[in-house]
Amino acid sequence: MTELRVIPLAGMPEVEPDDDLAELVAEAAVLEDGDVVVLAQKIVSKAEGRVVRLDEVEPSERARELAGDDDPRRMEVILREAARIVRSRPPLVIAETRHGFVCASAGVDASNAPEWGTLVLLPEDPDASAARLRDRLLELTGVEVAVIVSDSFGRAWRQGTTDVAIGCAGLQPLLDLHGERDATGYELHATVIAVADELAGAAELVKGKLEGVPVAVVRGFEARGEGTARELVMPRERDLFR
Amino acid sequence: MTELRVIPLAGMPEVEPDDDLAELVAEAAVLEDGDVVVLAQKIVSKAEGRVVRLDEVEPSERARELAGDDDPRRMEVILREAARIVRSRPPLVIAETRHGFVCASAGVDASNAPEWGTLVLLPEDPDASAARLRDRLLELTGVEVAVIVSDSFGRAWRQGTTDVAIGCAGLQPLLDLHGERDATGYELHATVIAVADELAGAAELVKGKLEGVPVAVVRGFEARGEGTARELVMPRERDLFR
Repeated sequence: MTELRVIPLAGMPEVEPDDDLAELVAEAAVLEDGDVVVLAQKIVSKAEGRVVRLDEVEPSERARELAGDDDPRRMEVILREAARIVRSRPPLVIAETRHGFVCASAGVDASNAPEWGTLVLLPEDPDASAARLRDRLLELTGVEVAVIVSDSFGRAWRQGTTDVAIGCAGLQPLLDLHGERDATGYELHATVIAVADELAGAAELVKGKLEGVPVAVVRGFEARGEGTARELVMPRERDLFR
Repeated sequence: MTELRVIPLAGMPEVEPDDDLAELVAEAAVLEDGDVVVLAQKIVSKAEGRVVRLDEVEPSERARELAGDDDPRRMEVILREAARIVRSRPPLVIAETRHGFVCASAGVDASNAPEWGTLVLLPEDPDASAARLRDRLLELTGVEVAVIVSDSFGRAWRQGTTDVAIGCAGLQPLLDLHGERDATGYELHATVIAVADELAGAAELVKGKLEGVPVAVVRGFEARGEGTARELVMPRERDLFR
Protein backbone atom coordinates (compact mmCIF):
# COMPACT_ATOMS: atom_id res chain seq x y z
CA MET A 1 0.00 0.00 0.00
CA THR A 2 1.48 3.24 -1.14
CA GLU A 3 1.19 6.58 0.60
CA LEU A 4 -1.12 9.37 -0.47
CA ARG A 5 -0.07 12.94 -1.19
CA VAL A 6 -2.55 15.78 -1.03
CA ILE A 7 -1.17 18.75 -2.90
CA PRO A 8 -2.75 22.22 -2.83
CA LEU A 9 -2.71 24.08 -6.15
CA ALA A 10 -1.31 27.50 -5.42
CA GLY A 11 -1.47 30.25 -7.99
CA MET A 12 -4.96 29.73 -9.36
CA PRO A 13 -6.35 33.12 -10.44
CA GLU A 14 -9.87 34.35 -9.58
CA VAL A 15 -12.31 32.50 -11.80
CA GLU A 16 -14.69 34.40 -14.12
CA PRO A 17 -17.72 33.16 -16.08
CA ASP A 18 -16.70 31.22 -19.21
CA ASP A 19 -13.14 30.73 -17.98
CA ASP A 20 -11.56 27.49 -19.16
CA LEU A 21 -11.12 26.01 -15.69
CA ALA A 22 -9.25 22.95 -16.94
CA GLU A 23 -6.72 25.21 -18.62
CA LEU A 24 -6.17 27.12 -15.37
CA VAL A 25 -5.62 23.80 -13.55
CA ALA A 26 -3.30 22.48 -16.25
CA GLU A 27 -1.22 25.67 -15.99
CA ALA A 28 -0.99 25.45 -12.19
CA ALA A 29 -0.15 21.72 -11.86
CA VAL A 30 1.94 18.98 -13.41
CA LEU A 31 -0.62 16.18 -13.41
CA GLU A 32 0.06 12.44 -13.48
CA ASP A 33 -2.08 9.51 -14.59
CA GLY A 34 -4.38 8.39 -11.76
CA ASP A 35 -4.33 11.75 -9.95
CA VAL A 36 -7.59 12.89 -8.42
CA VAL A 37 -8.20 16.59 -9.08
CA VAL A 38 -10.59 18.03 -6.48
CA LEU A 39 -12.18 21.39 -7.31
CA ALA A 40 -14.29 23.45 -4.94
CA GLN A 41 -17.86 23.68 -6.19
CA LYS A 42 -17.73 27.43 -6.04
CA ILE A 43 -15.15 27.91 -8.77
CA VAL A 44 -16.90 25.37 -10.98
CA SER A 45 -20.18 27.23 -10.49
CA LYS A 46 -18.56 30.59 -11.15
CA ALA A 47 -16.96 29.35 -14.38
CA GLU A 48 -20.40 28.06 -15.41
CA GLY A 49 -22.06 31.39 -14.62
CA ARG A 50 -24.23 29.92 -11.84
CA VAL A 51 -24.40 33.25 -10.04
CA VAL A 52 -27.57 35.17 -9.11
CA ARG A 53 -27.79 38.89 -8.36
CA LEU A 54 -29.94 39.55 -5.30
CA ASP A 55 -31.34 42.79 -6.74
CA GLU A 56 -32.95 40.78 -9.54
CA VAL A 57 -34.84 38.51 -7.14
CA GLU A 58 -38.45 39.11 -6.02
CA PRO A 59 -39.14 37.11 -2.84
CA SER A 60 -42.36 35.09 -2.51
CA GLU A 61 -44.55 35.04 0.60
CA ARG A 62 -43.14 31.65 1.61
CA ALA A 63 -39.59 32.97 1.29
CA ARG A 64 -40.49 35.85 3.63
CA GLU A 65 -41.88 33.40 6.19
CA LEU A 66 -38.87 31.09 6.15
CA ALA A 67 -36.29 33.88 6.08
CA GLY A 68 -36.95 35.15 9.61
CA ASP A 69 -34.68 38.17 10.07
CA ASP A 70 -32.55 37.17 7.10
CA ASP A 71 -32.78 38.50 3.52
CA PRO A 72 -35.97 37.02 1.97
CA ARG A 73 -34.43 37.29 -1.50
CA ARG A 74 -31.74 34.84 -0.44
CA MET A 75 -34.45 32.46 0.81
CA GLU A 76 -36.29 32.82 -2.49
CA VAL A 77 -33.20 31.66 -4.36
CA ILE A 78 -32.86 28.72 -1.97
CA LEU A 79 -36.49 27.70 -2.53
CA ARG A 80 -35.99 27.79 -6.29
CA GLU A 81 -32.99 25.44 -5.94
CA ALA A 82 -34.77 23.09 -3.52
CA ALA A 83 -36.74 20.02 -4.54
CA ARG A 84 -37.90 19.57 -0.93
CA ILE A 85 -37.39 21.26 2.43
CA VAL A 86 -36.09 18.66 4.88
CA ARG A 87 -35.91 20.81 8.02
CA SER A 88 -36.30 24.49 8.71
CA ARG A 89 -35.71 26.72 11.69
CA PRO A 90 -35.72 30.30 10.33
CA PRO A 91 -33.45 31.43 8.85
CA LEU A 92 -31.84 27.99 8.62
CA VAL A 93 -33.06 25.63 5.92
CA ILE A 94 -31.90 22.10 5.18
CA ALA A 95 -33.10 21.13 1.73
CA GLU A 96 -32.88 18.40 -0.83
CA THR A 97 -31.56 19.69 -4.14
CA ARG A 98 -32.75 18.55 -7.54
CA HIS A 99 -29.67 16.31 -7.63
CA GLY A 100 -30.85 14.55 -4.45
CA PHE A 101 -28.24 16.06 -2.13
CA VAL A 102 -29.45 17.07 1.32
CA CYS A 103 -27.59 20.14 2.54
CA ALA A 104 -27.93 23.58 4.11
CA SER A 105 -29.60 26.23 1.93
CA ALA A 106 -29.89 23.82 -1.03
CA GLY A 107 -26.23 24.55 -1.68
CA VAL A 108 -26.83 28.30 -2.20
CA ASP A 109 -23.98 30.26 -0.72
CA ALA A 110 -22.85 33.85 -0.37
CA SER A 111 -19.34 33.23 0.98
CA ASN A 112 -16.68 33.46 -1.71
CA ALA A 113 -19.29 34.89 -4.08
CA PRO A 114 -17.77 37.03 -6.83
CA GLU A 115 -19.12 40.23 -5.32
CA TRP A 116 -21.46 41.61 -2.68
CA GLY A 117 -25.09 41.10 -3.46
CA THR A 118 -24.62 37.87 -5.38
CA LEU A 119 -25.22 34.22 -4.55
CA VAL A 120 -23.53 31.18 -6.03
CA LEU A 121 -25.66 28.15 -6.90
CA LEU A 122 -24.57 24.53 -7.29
CA PRO A 123 -23.74 23.50 -10.87
CA GLU A 124 -26.77 22.34 -12.87
CA ASP A 125 -25.23 18.87 -13.22
CA PRO A 126 -22.01 18.52 -11.19
CA ASP A 127 -21.27 15.05 -12.59
CA ALA A 128 -21.37 16.48 -16.10
CA SER A 129 -19.14 19.33 -14.94
CA ALA A 130 -16.63 16.81 -13.59
CA ALA A 131 -16.74 14.76 -16.80
CA ARG A 132 -16.18 17.85 -18.97
CA LEU A 133 -13.23 18.93 -16.81
CA ARG A 134 -11.74 15.44 -17.02
CA ASP A 135 -12.09 15.28 -20.80
CA ARG A 136 -10.63 18.75 -21.24
CA LEU A 137 -7.67 17.94 -18.94
CA LEU A 138 -6.96 14.84 -21.02
CA GLU A 139 -7.10 16.96 -24.17
CA LEU A 140 -4.76 19.60 -22.75
CA THR A 141 -2.25 17.38 -20.93
CA GLY A 142 -2.61 13.85 -22.29
CA VAL A 143 -3.01 12.68 -18.71
CA GLU A 144 -5.94 10.60 -17.42
CA VAL A 145 -7.09 11.98 -14.10
CA ALA A 146 -10.23 11.62 -12.03
CA VAL A 147 -12.15 14.78 -11.16
CA ILE A 148 -14.20 15.51 -8.06
CA VAL A 149 -16.34 18.62 -7.58
CA SER A 150 -16.57 19.11 -3.81
CA ASP A 151 -18.73 21.12 -1.44
CA SER A 152 -18.81 21.58 2.33
CA PHE A 153 -21.86 19.85 3.80
CA GLY A 154 -23.07 19.75 7.38
CA ARG A 155 -24.02 16.39 8.83
CA ALA A 156 -26.90 15.20 10.97
CA TRP A 157 -25.82 14.80 14.62
CA ARG A 158 -22.26 16.04 14.11
CA GLN A 159 -20.82 19.52 14.37
CA GLY A 160 -18.93 21.16 11.58
CA THR A 161 -18.82 20.57 7.86
CA THR A 162 -16.77 18.12 5.86
CA ASP A 163 -16.21 18.33 2.14
CA VAL A 164 -18.02 15.72 0.08
CA ALA A 165 -18.21 14.89 -3.62
CA ILE A 166 -21.16 16.44 -5.44
CA GLY A 167 -19.74 15.60 -8.87
CA CYS A 168 -17.26 13.01 -10.00
CA ALA A 169 -15.76 11.43 -13.09
CA GLY A 170 -13.09 8.81 -13.66
CA LEU A 171 -13.39 6.93 -10.40
CA GLN A 172 -15.81 4.71 -8.52
CA PRO A 173 -17.15 6.87 -5.68
CA LEU A 174 -18.10 3.82 -3.60
CA LEU A 175 -15.60 1.07 -2.79
CA ASP A 176 -17.73 -2.01 -2.33
CA LEU A 177 -16.22 -4.76 -0.19
CA HIS A 178 -19.33 -6.96 -0.27
CA GLY A 179 -18.33 -10.58 -0.23
CA GLU A 180 -14.72 -9.86 0.62
CA ARG A 181 -13.45 -11.27 3.87
CA ASP A 182 -11.37 -9.73 6.61
CA ALA A 183 -8.35 -11.39 8.21
CA THR A 184 -10.51 -13.65 10.41
CA GLY A 185 -12.72 -14.81 7.55
CA TYR A 186 -15.68 -12.62 8.51
CA GLU A 187 -17.58 -11.32 5.52
CA LEU A 188 -17.48 -7.53 5.42
CA HIS A 189 -21.11 -7.37 4.38
CA ALA A 190 -21.77 -3.86 5.58
CA THR A 191 -18.65 -2.28 4.21
CA VAL A 192 -19.17 0.11 1.35
CA ILE A 193 -16.76 3.00 1.67
CA ALA A 194 -17.57 6.41 0.21
CA VAL A 195 -14.03 7.03 -1.02
CA ALA A 196 -15.04 10.02 -3.16
CA ASP A 197 -16.25 11.81 -0.02
CA GLU A 198 -13.06 10.91 1.86
CA LEU A 199 -11.00 12.21 -1.08
CA ALA A 200 -12.99 15.47 -1.06
CA GLY A 201 -12.43 15.82 2.68
CA ALA A 202 -8.70 15.13 2.37
CA ALA A 203 -8.45 17.83 -0.30
CA GLU A 204 -10.33 20.31 1.92
CA LEU A 205 -7.59 19.95 4.55
CA VAL A 206 -5.08 21.63 2.22
CA LYS A 207 -7.33 23.86 0.15
CA GLY A 208 -8.11 26.28 2.92
CA LYS A 209 -11.16 28.45 2.45
CA LEU A 210 -9.43 31.74 3.08
CA GLU A 211 -6.18 31.51 1.21
CA GLY A 212 -7.82 31.23 -2.19
CA VAL A 213 -6.67 27.69 -2.96
CA PRO A 214 -9.78 26.13 -4.47
CA VAL A 215 -8.11 23.08 -6.08
CA ALA A 216 -6.05 20.20 -4.71
CA VAL A 217 -4.58 17.09 -6.27
CA VAL A 218 -4.61 13.73 -4.49
CA ARG A 219 -1.78 11.51 -5.74
CA GLY A 220 -1.30 7.82 -4.94
CA PHE A 221 -4.94 6.78 -4.81
CA GLU A 222 -4.69 5.44 -8.35
CA ALA A 223 -8.20 6.31 -9.39
CA ARG A 224 -9.86 4.00 -11.83
CA GLY A 225 -13.30 2.93 -13.01
CA GLU A 226 -16.30 5.06 -13.76
CA GLY A 227 -19.02 6.45 -11.55
CA THR A 228 -20.97 9.52 -10.61
CA ALA A 229 -21.65 11.38 -7.39
CA ARG A 230 -25.34 10.60 -7.88
CA GLU A 231 -24.44 7.10 -6.70
CA LEU A 232 -23.64 8.62 -3.32
CA VAL A 233 -27.26 9.67 -2.84
CA MET A 234 -29.08 7.14 -0.64
CA PRO A 235 -31.90 5.58 -2.65
CA ARG A 236 -35.34 6.52 -1.32
CA GLU A 237 -36.27 2.95 -0.39
CA ARG A 238 -33.15 2.43 1.74
CA ASP A 239 -33.24 5.86 3.39
CA LEU A 240 -34.23 5.71 7.07
CA PHE A 241 -34.01 9.50 7.42
CA ARG A 242 -36.34 10.94 4.80
CA MET B 1 0.35 25.98 2.32
CA THR B 2 2.26 22.74 2.49
CA GLU B 3 1.18 19.40 1.13
CA LEU B 4 -0.17 16.56 3.22
CA ARG B 5 1.19 13.03 3.28
CA VAL B 6 -0.97 10.13 4.40
CA ILE B 7 1.25 7.20 5.28
CA PRO B 8 -0.07 3.71 6.03
CA LEU B 9 1.72 1.85 8.82
CA ALA B 10 2.61 -1.54 7.46
CA GLY B 11 3.88 -4.27 9.73
CA MET B 12 1.56 -3.83 12.72
CA PRO B 13 0.99 -7.23 14.35
CA GLU B 14 -2.44 -8.54 15.40
CA VAL B 15 -3.45 -6.72 18.60
CA GLU B 16 -4.23 -8.65 21.79
CA PRO B 17 -5.83 -7.46 25.04
CA ASP B 18 -3.39 -5.49 27.21
CA ASP B 19 -0.99 -4.93 24.33
CA ASP B 20 0.92 -1.65 24.52
CA LEU B 21 -0.54 -0.19 21.34
CA ALA B 22 1.64 2.92 21.45
CA GLU B 23 4.74 0.72 21.57
CA LEU B 24 3.57 -1.20 18.49
CA VAL B 25 3.03 2.11 16.67
CA ALA B 26 6.39 3.50 17.79
CA GLU B 27 8.11 0.37 16.47
CA ALA B 28 6.34 0.57 13.10
CA ALA B 29 6.80 4.30 12.42
CA VAL B 30 9.32 7.10 12.67
CA LEU B 31 7.09 9.85 14.01
CA GLU B 32 7.62 13.60 13.73
CA ASP B 33 6.31 16.49 15.82
CA GLY B 34 2.87 17.55 14.58
CA ASP B 35 2.04 14.19 12.99
CA VAL B 36 -1.52 12.96 13.36
CA VAL B 37 -1.63 9.25 14.21
CA VAL B 38 -4.98 7.76 13.21
CA LEU B 39 -5.86 4.37 14.73
CA ALA B 40 -8.85 2.25 13.78
CA GLN B 41 -11.25 1.94 16.70
CA LYS B 42 -11.15 -1.81 16.49
CA ILE B 43 -7.52 -2.21 17.48
CA VAL B 44 -7.93 0.31 20.30
CA SER B 45 -10.96 -1.62 21.55
CA LYS B 46 -9.15 -4.95 21.27
CA ALA B 47 -6.15 -3.66 23.21
CA GLU B 48 -8.58 -2.43 25.89
CA GLY B 49 -10.35 -5.79 26.04
CA ARG B 50 -13.66 -4.37 24.77
CA VAL B 51 -14.69 -7.73 23.31
CA VAL B 52 -17.85 -9.70 24.14
CA ARG B 53 -18.36 -13.44 23.60
CA LEU B 54 -21.76 -14.15 22.08
CA ASP B 55 -22.16 -17.41 24.02
CA GLU B 56 -22.14 -15.43 27.26
CA VAL B 57 -25.03 -13.19 26.19
CA GLU B 58 -28.68 -13.86 27.10
CA PRO B 59 -30.96 -11.90 24.75
CA SER B 60 -33.91 -9.95 26.14
CA GLU B 61 -37.40 -9.95 24.61
CA ARG B 62 -36.76 -6.53 23.05
CA ALA B 63 -33.56 -7.79 21.48
CA ARG B 64 -35.47 -10.69 19.91
CA GLU B 65 -38.03 -8.28 18.47
CA LEU B 66 -35.49 -5.91 16.96
CA ALA B 67 -33.20 -8.65 15.66
CA GLY B 68 -35.57 -9.93 12.98
CA ASP B 69 -33.82 -12.91 11.38
CA ASP B 70 -30.46 -11.88 12.83
CA ASP B 71 -28.77 -13.19 15.99
CA PRO B 72 -30.72 -11.76 18.98
CA ARG B 73 -27.60 -11.99 21.17
CA ARG B 74 -25.90 -9.49 18.88
CA MET B 75 -28.91 -7.17 19.21
CA GLU B 76 -28.78 -7.55 22.99
CA VAL B 77 -25.18 -6.32 23.01
CA ILE B 78 -26.18 -3.38 20.79
CA LEU B 79 -29.02 -2.43 23.16
CA ARG B 80 -26.64 -2.50 26.13
CA GLU B 81 -24.31 -0.10 24.29
CA ALA B 82 -27.12 2.21 23.16
CA ALA B 83 -28.34 5.24 25.07
CA ARG B 84 -31.20 5.65 22.59
CA ILE B 85 -32.48 3.96 19.43
CA VAL B 86 -32.69 6.59 16.69
CA ARG B 87 -34.12 4.42 13.88
CA SER B 88 -34.73 0.73 13.46
CA ARG B 89 -35.73 -1.50 10.58
CA PRO B 90 -34.99 -5.06 11.74
CA PRO B 91 -32.25 -6.16 11.84
CA LEU B 92 -30.80 -2.69 11.20
CA VAL B 93 -30.50 -0.34 14.17
CA ILE B 94 -29.19 3.22 14.22
CA ALA B 95 -28.45 4.17 17.82
CA GLU B 96 -26.98 6.92 19.92
CA THR B 97 -24.12 5.66 22.04
CA ARG B 98 -23.40 6.80 25.59
CA HIS B 99 -20.76 9.10 24.07
CA GLY B 100 -23.45 10.81 21.99
CA PHE B 101 -22.40 9.34 18.63
CA VAL B 102 -25.19 8.30 16.29
CA CYS B 103 -24.17 5.26 14.26
CA ALA B 104 -25.20 1.82 13.09
CA SER B 105 -25.44 -0.86 15.79
CA ALA B 106 -24.21 1.57 18.49
CA GLY B 107 -20.72 0.89 17.17
CA VAL B 108 -20.91 -2.85 17.89
CA ASP B 109 -19.18 -4.79 15.14
CA ALA B 110 -18.33 -8.34 14.22
CA SER B 111 -16.00 -7.65 11.29
CA ASN B 112 -12.34 -7.78 12.23
CA ALA B 113 -13.33 -9.27 15.59
CA PRO B 114 -10.57 -11.38 17.15
CA GLU B 115 -12.44 -14.62 16.54
CA TRP B 116 -15.76 -16.05 15.45
CA GLY B 117 -18.51 -15.62 17.97
CA THR B 118 -17.20 -12.37 19.39
CA LEU B 119 -18.21 -8.75 19.03
CA VAL B 120 -16.04 -5.66 19.45
CA LEU B 121 -17.49 -2.67 21.32
CA LEU B 122 -16.42 0.97 21.11
CA PRO B 123 -13.89 2.04 23.75
CA GLU B 124 -15.46 3.16 27.04
CA ASP B 125 -14.03 6.65 26.56
CA PRO B 126 -12.33 7.05 23.16
CA ASP B 127 -11.04 10.55 23.99
CA ALA B 128 -9.29 9.14 27.04
CA SER B 129 -7.91 6.32 24.87
CA ALA B 130 -6.52 8.89 22.44
CA ALA B 131 -5.00 10.95 25.26
CA ARG B 132 -3.33 7.90 26.80
CA LEU B 133 -1.89 6.85 23.43
CA ARG B 134 -0.61 10.38 22.84
CA ASP B 135 1.06 10.55 26.27
CA ARG B 136 2.62 7.12 25.87
CA LEU B 137 3.92 7.98 22.37
CA LEU B 138 5.55 11.11 23.81
CA GLU B 139 7.11 9.01 26.57
CA LEU B 140 8.43 6.40 24.13
CA THR B 141 9.59 8.65 21.29
CA GLY B 142 9.94 12.18 22.66
CA VAL B 143 7.70 13.32 19.82
CA GLU B 144 4.50 15.35 20.22
CA VAL B 145 1.83 13.92 17.97
CA ALA B 146 -1.94 14.20 17.83
CA VAL B 147 -3.97 11.01 18.06
CA ILE B 148 -7.33 10.21 16.46
CA VAL B 149 -9.32 7.07 17.12
CA SER B 150 -11.47 6.54 14.02
CA ASP B 151 -14.49 4.48 13.10
CA SER B 152 -16.51 3.99 9.91
CA PHE B 153 -19.91 5.65 10.23
CA GLY B 154 -22.80 5.71 7.80
CA ARG B 155 -24.44 9.05 7.08
CA ALA B 156 -28.02 10.18 6.72
CA TRP B 157 -29.02 10.57 3.03
CA ARG B 158 -25.66 9.40 1.63
CA GLN B 159 -24.48 5.95 0.64
CA GLY B 160 -21.39 4.36 2.06
CA THR B 161 -19.40 4.98 5.19
CA THR B 162 -16.66 7.49 5.85
CA ASP B 163 -14.25 7.29 8.74
CA VAL B 164 -14.79 9.88 11.46
CA ALA B 165 -13.06 10.73 14.73
CA ILE B 166 -14.61 9.13 17.81
CA GLY B 167 -11.64 10.01 20.00
CA CYS B 168 -8.99 12.66 19.71
CA ALA B 169 -6.14 14.29 21.60
CA GLY B 170 -3.62 16.96 20.71
CA LEU B 171 -5.60 18.82 18.08
CA GLN B 172 -8.68 20.97 17.75
CA PRO B 173 -11.24 18.78 15.98
CA LEU B 174 -13.19 21.79 14.71
CA LEU B 175 -11.54 24.58 12.75
CA ASP B 176 -13.65 27.62 13.48
CA LEU B 177 -13.52 30.39 10.88
CA HIS B 178 -16.18 32.56 12.58
CA GLY B 179 -15.44 36.20 12.06
CA GLU B 180 -12.77 35.57 9.45
CA ARG B 181 -13.41 37.00 6.03
CA ASP B 182 -12.99 35.50 2.61
CA ALA B 183 -11.30 37.21 -0.32
CA THR B 184 -14.37 39.39 -1.07
CA GLY B 185 -14.80 40.51 2.54
CA TYR B 186 -17.79 38.27 3.23
CA GLU B 187 -17.83 36.94 6.77
CA LEU B 188 -17.60 33.15 6.74
CA HIS B 189 -20.18 32.88 9.49
CA ALA B 190 -21.26 29.33 8.78
CA THR B 191 -17.84 27.86 8.35
CA VAL B 192 -16.75 25.46 11.06
CA ILE B 193 -14.80 22.62 9.52
CA ALA B 194 -14.66 19.20 11.17
CA VAL B 195 -10.99 18.66 10.39
CA ALA B 196 -10.69 15.65 12.72
CA ASP B 197 -13.30 13.82 10.64
CA GLU B 198 -11.56 14.78 7.40
CA LEU B 199 -8.26 13.53 8.83
CA ALA B 200 -9.90 10.24 9.84
CA GLY B 201 -11.34 9.88 6.34
CA ALA B 202 -8.01 10.64 4.69
CA ALA B 203 -6.36 7.95 6.83
CA GLU B 204 -9.05 5.45 5.88
CA LEU B 205 -8.07 5.82 2.23
CA VAL B 206 -4.70 4.22 2.90
CA LYS B 207 -5.50 1.95 5.82
CA GLY B 208 -7.54 -0.49 3.82
CA LYS B 209 -9.87 -2.66 5.80
CA LEU B 210 -8.63 -5.95 4.38
CA GLU B 211 -4.89 -5.69 4.32
CA GLY B 212 -4.56 -5.42 8.08
CA VAL B 213 -3.25 -1.86 8.13
CA PRO B 214 -5.16 -0.34 11.04
CA VAL B 215 -2.97 2.75 11.56
CA ALA B 216 -1.97 5.66 9.35
CA VAL B 217 0.03 8.81 9.94
CA VAL B 218 -0.99 12.16 8.44
CA ARG B 219 2.04 14.44 8.08
CA GLY B 220 1.95 18.13 7.16
CA PHE B 221 -1.26 19.09 8.94
CA GLU B 222 0.77 20.47 11.85
CA ALA B 223 -1.68 19.53 14.54
CA ARG B 224 -1.90 21.85 17.49
CA GLY B 225 -4.25 22.85 20.28
CA GLU B 226 -6.38 20.64 22.46
CA GLY B 227 -9.81 19.20 22.00
CA THR B 228 -11.91 16.07 22.16
CA ALA B 229 -14.11 14.18 19.75
CA ARG B 230 -17.04 14.90 22.07
CA GLU B 231 -16.96 18.41 20.63
CA LEU B 232 -17.99 16.87 17.32
CA VAL B 233 -21.30 15.77 18.77
CA MET B 234 -24.05 18.24 17.84
CA PRO B 235 -25.46 19.76 21.04
CA ARG B 236 -29.05 18.75 21.68
CA GLU B 237 -30.40 22.30 21.40
CA ARG B 238 -28.85 22.86 17.96
CA ASP B 239 -29.71 19.44 16.56
CA LEU B 240 -32.45 19.56 13.91
CA PHE B 241 -32.37 15.77 13.50
CA ARG B 242 -32.99 14.31 16.94
